[in-house]
Amino acid sequence: MNDRKRGVVIGSGSRVSKEKLLAAIEKSDFTIAADGGAQYAVHLGIQPDLLVGDFDSIAESDLQYFREAGVPIEQFPKEKDETDMELAIRLLEEKEIREITLFGASGSRLDHTFLNTLLILKAKKRETKIILIDETNEIRALEEKMTITKRDGYLSVMPVDSSILISLSGVEYPLERKRIYLGDGLGVSNEITSEFATVECHEGEGLLFLSTDE
Amino acid sequence: MNDRKRGVVIGSGSRVSKEKLLAAIEKSDFTIAADGGAQYAVHLGIQPDLLVGDFDSIAESDLQYFREAGVPIEQFPKEKDETDMELAIRLLEEKEIREITLFGASGSRLDHTFLNTLLILKAKKRETKIILIDETNEIRALEEKMTITKRDGYLSVMPVDSSILISLSGVEYPLERKRIYLGDGLGVSNEITSEFATVECHEGEGLLFLSTDE
Repeated sequence: MNDRKRGVVIGSGSRVSKEKLLAAIEKSDFTIAADGGAQYAVHLGIQPDLLVGDFDSIAESDLQYFREAGVPIEQFPKEKDETDMELAIRLLEEKEIREITLFGASGSRLDHTFLNTLLILKAKKRETKIILIDETNEIRALEEKMTITKRDGYLSVMPVDSSILISLSGVEYPLERKRIYLGDGLGVSNEITSEFATVECHEGEGLLFLSTDE
Repeated sequence: MNDRKRGVVIGSGSRVSKEKLLAAIEKSDFTIAADGGAQYAVHLGIQPDLLVGDFDSIAESDLQYFREAGVPIEQFPKEKDETDMELAIRLLEEKEIREITLFGASGSRLDHTFLNTLLILKAKKRETKIILIDETNEIRALEEKMTITKRDGYLSVMPVDSSILISLSGVEYPLERKRIYLGDGLGVSNEITSEFATVECHEGEGLLFLSTDE
């Protein structure tokens, strides 16, 4: 059991299915729509607990919709040192929320996709757990010991540091205390072959990807 | 003038426009189609100089097309420590090619997208320059001093290391010897406002993104 408070951020990147999003919001204590993510919330008829951003990419009619629905709105200047996604994460942390799921955090803007992925590692240092979810991927930080339930698709691990020392079991190509260096493809595209896969990161910082082809 | 030899890799990720791809191949000394990338080459009627991969994601009819066209094919086992993209880069480097453009290296599989982006930094250590190009992004490694011609869209810099020390000029939000830490959004989404933007990376390793919204 895990009684840590949970939060959801809906960003302006690629949209995930309504089912995926609603399932996460159901378990969420606080949901923030970040800038353009508000449009998707309107589209789905979802009422977030807060709307944040500089709103440079949102229709005035959508803002009006949230105002009328009584959703609190925090507007920040366009010239700021944080992205809307960082802002949303910080506001959740101020509410003592330490388990955060990001939607709409990936997409055709690879600068944002890449940065949002790095945010996962930055947050880990503050003991905040972030999962980035889109239609074909789930990304989280590597931890000392993780258990992943069997599912379709691929399990990948990679360092975002000079290297990681990693063990993998329950997968097609197990690894035993293997060192993987930055940019090495050795940890990519494993298939889970047992009921559970076990991932142990003995040293270093990195990411775990669970991905499907379509 | 730059007389270094150039190479192109066509991977199995998102497809770019024919114009973009042909423009790069025109300037390329050697073009490799990596696994599923061969299908796009067939589709465009492009004849690469070499086809590499484990071919787990390519139709036999496409392989046959290349065989009949006399394109050399190097098949590698599915169980290997390198991805098809890494293989292709290594083969180009064996031909003394040190300027490589990757197409089809990003897409819905974020594990591959992320790894291919890290490959840029890994290659930099071997003095190989890689540019990853897709329909809305160009990604390359930060260098000591870079000049970027004015264009639509956004210029972003970020560390893939603990931090970078960076100066930016000719952009909407200039920076003067500013330190940016891993996961910080400070260097993201700048617009080029002068004829040229200048990017200087004084310390650390990181990436430069040139991105457009659509």
